[in-house]
Amino acid sequence: MGSLEVERTTIGWAASDPSAVLSPYTYTLRNTGPDDVYIKVIYCGVCHTDLHQAKNDLGMSNYPMVPGHEVVGQVLEVGSEVTKFRVGDCVGVGIVVGSCQNCATCISEKEQYCNKKIWNYNDVYTDGKPTQGGFAREMIVNSKFAVKIPEGMAAEQVAPLLCAGVTVYSPLTHFGLARPGLRGGVLGLGGVGHMGVKIAKAMGHTVTVISSSNKKKEEALDHLGADEFLVSSDEEAMKAAADSLDYIIDTVPVFHPLEPYLSLLKLDGKLILMGVINTPLQFVTPMVMLGRKTITGSFIGSVKETEEMLEFCKDRGLTSQIEVIKMDYINKAFERLEKNDVRYRFVVDVAGSKFDE
Amino acid sequence: MGSLEVERTTIGWAASDPSAVLSPYTYTLRNTGPDDVYIKVIYCGVCHTDLHQAKNDLGMSNYPMVPGHEVVGQVLEVGSEVTKFRVGDCVGVGIVVGSCQNCATCISEKEQYCNKKIWNYNDVYTDGKPTQGGFAREMIVNSKFAVKIPEGMAAEQVAPLLCAGVTVYSPLTHFGLARPGLRGGVLGLGGVGHMGVKIAKAMGHTVTVISSSNKKKEEALDHLGADEFLVSSDEEAMKAAADSLDYIIDTVPVFHPLEPYLSLLKLDGKLILMGVINTPLQFVTPMVMLGRKTITGSFIGSVKETEEMLEFCKDRGLTSQIEVIKMDYINKAFERLEKNDVRYRFVVDVAGSKFDE
Repeated sequence: MGSLEVERTTIGWAASDPSAVLSPYTYTLRNTGPDDVYIKVIYCGVCHTDLHQAKNDLGMSNYPMVPGHEVVGQVLEVGSEVTKFRVGDCVGVGIVVGSCQNCATCISEKEQYCNKKIWNYNDVYTDGKPTQGGFAREMIVNSKFAVKIPEGMAAEQVAPLLCAGVTVYSPLTHFGLARPGLRGGVLGLGGVGHMGVKIAKAMGHTVTVISSSNKKKEEALDHLGADEFLVSSDEEAMKAAADSLDYIIDTVPVFHPLEPYLSLLKLDGKLILMGVINTPLQFVTPMVMLGRKTITGSFIGSVKETEEMLEFCKDRGLTSQIEVIKMDYINKAFERLEKNDVRYRFVVDVAGSKFDE
Repeated sequence: MGSLEVERTTIGWAASDPSAVLSPYTYTLRNTGPDDVYIKVIYCGVCHTDLHQAKNDLGMSNYPMVPGHEVVGQVLEVGSEVTKFRVGDCVGVGIVVGSCQNCATCISEKEQYCNKKIWNYNDVYTDGKPTQGGFAREMIVNSKFAVKIPEGMAAEQVAPLLCAGVTVYSPLTHFGLARPGLRGGVLGLGGVGHMGVKIAKAMGHTVTVISSSNKKKEEALDHLGADEFLVSSDEEAMKAAADSLDYIIDTVPVFHPLEPYLSLLKLDGKLILMGVINTPLQFVTPMVMLGRKTITGSFIGSVKETEEMLEFCKDRGLTSQIEVIKMDYINKAFERLEKNDVRYRFVVDVAGSKFDE
C-alpha cells in the first residue's frame, strides 16, 4: 500500500502545561512512509514516566504533549517497504520510535541507547513534527520500532510488558542474570517492580521484595509469588539479609539512600537502577569496593529484546496485573499513580474510549 | 624447620596516635606456625592508605600501628607444613594476610573479599595479637598470603606492584577489559594511577590520563606513555571526549563529582573506583541508565591474581616509577605524599635502614 496524499488528523489526550491535566487535542499525523505502519491504538499502559513528563519534572517537556508509550495497536495500513507486518496485525510500540540506524550502537541492536534515538512523544521526528504518544486514537510508527504481539496474548495484558516488562527483562539478560538459582531483590512494588517479581520468578530466582512498609507484604507473597518480604526500616531483618542477594532491581523513582541496599548484595552483586531521579543519589566508596559491587542502570530494552521478552512471557503464561480504565479517567489515574494507589498498572482501553474534542 | 620456643621481638616504625608521626617501636612476633614464613623485610612501598590509617581518617585505627603493605622480603624460616617457599626466597606480601579459607569467596580464590579477612596491620590476628605491617625489620606471615617474586625482578620495583599494581590489574581482568583495542581513562596520577597507565598500555589500550590541571601532561605523555591527556576543567575538551572510553580507573582519594567522568564513558562503560573515600559520592540516575554505565569498585586482588600480575609485568618488562627512601624519612614522605609530591611511589629501603629504638 502506498502513502496517502493528504495528512490525516487524529485525536489524543494531551497535557497543555505542567499542571499535567490531559484533555482531548486534535493534531495531524504524517503520511504513511515506506517504512511506516499506521495503527489504531487498542490499549496503552500508564507509566510513571508519563506523569513525570506531563508535569515537566525532568525540565524538558514541550506542550501540547500526548503521553503513552506502552502501546498495543492494530495495523490499519503498511508502507510500501514494510514486510514485517500486514494490515490487521496486532503490534506493540514502546518508548523509542526512531534511531540513526547507522551507529555502532544501532548496528549491534541496542538502538535504545543510540544518541539520536527518537522518543515516542515529547520529541521531534525526522520530518520536524513533534512526536505524540499512545493516548491517541491512531499513530504512525516506523515499523522497525514496532513488534508483533504473539498470537494468543491478551492485548491489555501485553501493554505493560512493552515498557515495565522489558525494562526488567533486558538488564537481567544483559548482565547474565537470566539463569536459575539466583537470589534477586525487587525494591519498590509499582508497575516495574511487580513485573520484576514475576519475571525473576519465571527465571527461577528466589525473590525478595524490599519495601518501606509491610503494607504490601501479603500481596507480594501471596499474589505475586515473591519468596520473601523485607521492610527496609527493620534494621534487624536488613542485617540478617546482608550479603544475600545477587542483584536488586531498584524501581524507586525518588531519592533514597543506596547503602542499605548495597549491603544486601553479595560479592559482585548488582544494584540495577530503573527509576529516573533528578536528585543525585549517594554512596560511599568502600561499600562498593569491598564487595566489588556494581551500581548500574538500564533503559528499557531493544526491539529484539522486546520480541524475546514477549515470547518468554507467552511461553510461561506470564501476565501483568492491571486496572483497565477509559481515557477520560486518565487525570484521576495520574492522581492515584502519584500516590502509588494502583495494583500495579493502569491500562487505558483506548479503542473503547470516546475521543471527541 | 620447626617453631622457635621463645617469642621474638622486632622493631618497626609505628604511629602512636592520629598525629601520624612514626617512630621506632619494639614488639613481639608470634612463633613461626606450621603455615607461616618468617621474613626479613627488604623493601616496603608507601601507599596513600597507610597515611589514611595512620591518621585515623577512616575512624578505625588502633595504636601503636606499624603501617606498610607493599612488602618485599626474604624468607628466614619456614613453618613445618610450608612447601611453597624455601629459606632465602624473595617473597611479596600485600594488604591481606589472612581469611577464613572456608567460605565460597575463599574457595573461589577471591579471598581478598572474605568477610573474615585479616589486614596486614591495624587488625587482630587469630592469636589475638595486633597485626603490624611492613615498616618493620621482620614479619611473620601465613605463607598462603605471600607470593613468590619471579626471578629477575628488582625487589624495590616490585613493592608497588603488590598493592598499586594488582589494584589495577585485578579489575581490568575481572571485568573483561584485559584485551587489546580498548580505550581506557586513568583519573588521578598517583601511585595507583601511574601503574594504571603502564598496565593498561601493556594490555594494548589507548590510554587517556584525566587530571585537574595540565601540570602532569608532559610526564604522562612522554614518560609514562599515555596517549592522551584531558584536563577535567576544560569543558570543551571534555565534551569532545564524551562517549569515548570503555572504562575509567578512578584513583582520586577525595570527594569529586562523578558526572563529568560518567559522560566520558561509552555505552556499557565502567567507572572503576579505587579510592577509599568516606564522603559520599553522587551521581544522577539518567546518566547511568541511558548508557547502561556501571559504577563499581575493586579492592586489591587475590593471591592468584597477584602472581599472575607479577608474571605479566615481568614478561612485558613493566616497572613502577619510584623514589627510594630510608625509614627515617617516612614522616617527611607522608608530608610529601599528602601534597601528592612524589613520582609516583615512595619505597622504603627497609633492609638498608636503621632500626634502633
